Amino acid sequence: MTTVDTHTEHSHHGYITDKERYLNRLKRIEGQARGISRMVDEEKYCIDILTQISALKSALEAVAVGLLDDHLKHCVVDAARAGGDEADEKIKEASDAIARLVRS
Amino acid sequence: MTTVDTHTEHSHHGYITDKERYLNRLKRIEGQARGISRMVDEEKYCIDILTQISALKSALEAVAVGLLDDHLKHCVVDAARAGGDEADEKIKEASDAIARLVRS
Amino acid sequence: MTTVDTHTEHSHHGYITDKERYLNRLKRIEGQARGISRMVDEEKYCIDILTQISALKSALEAVAVGLLDDHLKHCVVDAARAGGDEADEKIKEASDAIARLVRS
Amino acid sequence: MTTVDTHTEHSHHGYITDKERYLNRLKRIEGQARGISRMVDEEKYCIDILTQISALKSALEAVAVGLLDDHLKHCVVDAARAGGDEADEKIKEASDAIARLVRS
Repeated sequence: MTTVDTHTEHSHHGYITDKERYLNRLKRIEGQARGISRMVDEEKYCIDILTQISALKSALEAVAVGLLDDHLKHCVVDAARAGGDEADEKIKEASDAIARLVRS
Repeated sequence: MTTVDTHTEHSHHGYITDKERYLNRLKRIEGQARGISRMVDEEKYCIDILTQISALKSALEAVAVGLLDDHLKHCVVDAARAGGDEADEKIKEASDAIARLVRS
Repeated sequence: MTTVDTHTEHSHHGYITDKERYLNRLKRIEGQARGISRMVDEEKYCIDILTQISALKSALEAVAVGLLDDHLKHCVVDAARAGGDEADEKIKEASDAIARLVRS
Repeated sequence: MTTVDTHTEHSHHGYITDKERYLNRLKRIEGQARGISRMVDEEKYCIDILTQISALKSALEAVAVGLLDDHLKHCVVDAARAGGDEADEKIKEASDAIARLVRS
């Protein structure tokens, strides 16, 4: 799916250095979601399903916190250096994303 | 995957009345997880990925709260009526699951 | 503030056996809130204030999970035994409280 | 409690422009904590206490998200402009605070 403008994307989106690691973690997350579906289909014990949902939620939060860290390190730092309205806008965007994550 | 003891399972695990609805919701959740993976692979904007992660987290929590409600309605109520140690054990199990969910 | 119907309240609300422990934990929570206020007033370092807020949030969640456990053990079990609409209503109430807590 | 070095503190800690607003919000939070303590002392209905705890948790999270936004806007932007190790360190600190908040 990567395209010829990967390099540009890289400089914009920053998390590319760890892309493989993120993709592996997300593949595991997909597997966890599939496993929960299977547990419901096989009518496993409710409490065991809830344990798996809590584990998936933690795994998702860990990915989100990692992405935020990368975003701050790259986008926000770049924007801060460029200064002006873009810096303000990037910070607002990041803060809104943090708020959604904390409250979701 | 359902087996001949479905009926027994049903009476134990309680959420079967809504099984199809849970499976549909979990299928959507799997799709959301796959979508997030694809966004990372295509190097989409970090903030947009975080928005999808928050949405997936909310969807998961909604499923968990639904399963807990079903669990209380069936297992816990049945155990409470049966009384004795099993009631205590079921409540403890449910409380521990709530704690994991709230803190995860 | 306790009134003459304390005994009746006791039998209804169940958490009274641990009341002193809850009051002590809540007194600590009040102290934590006051401490955070003082840190802002004294313009302490933002990250240190955030650490205290996370600690307070965890302490609150622990109290909530304890109250829910007590509530299930007493009110919900009693209602389950009494049966009928009251049992359904109590479970719905508890599930709604869990949902608010998980999503807040 | 403000001291003669307020100006220096200001330039370091950034949230001072809204200090009165934060102090008011934190005073309300203290009042909410005191109210919950009183509800337990008066043996109010468990579910009503849990509703107040969820409200307090949301109020705390809103303050935390506000402080993080201010922190990013001031400390992190300043450090990004200064560059070097301090920028990296400030970002790491902020990410760790976000992780604690999301997971608490």
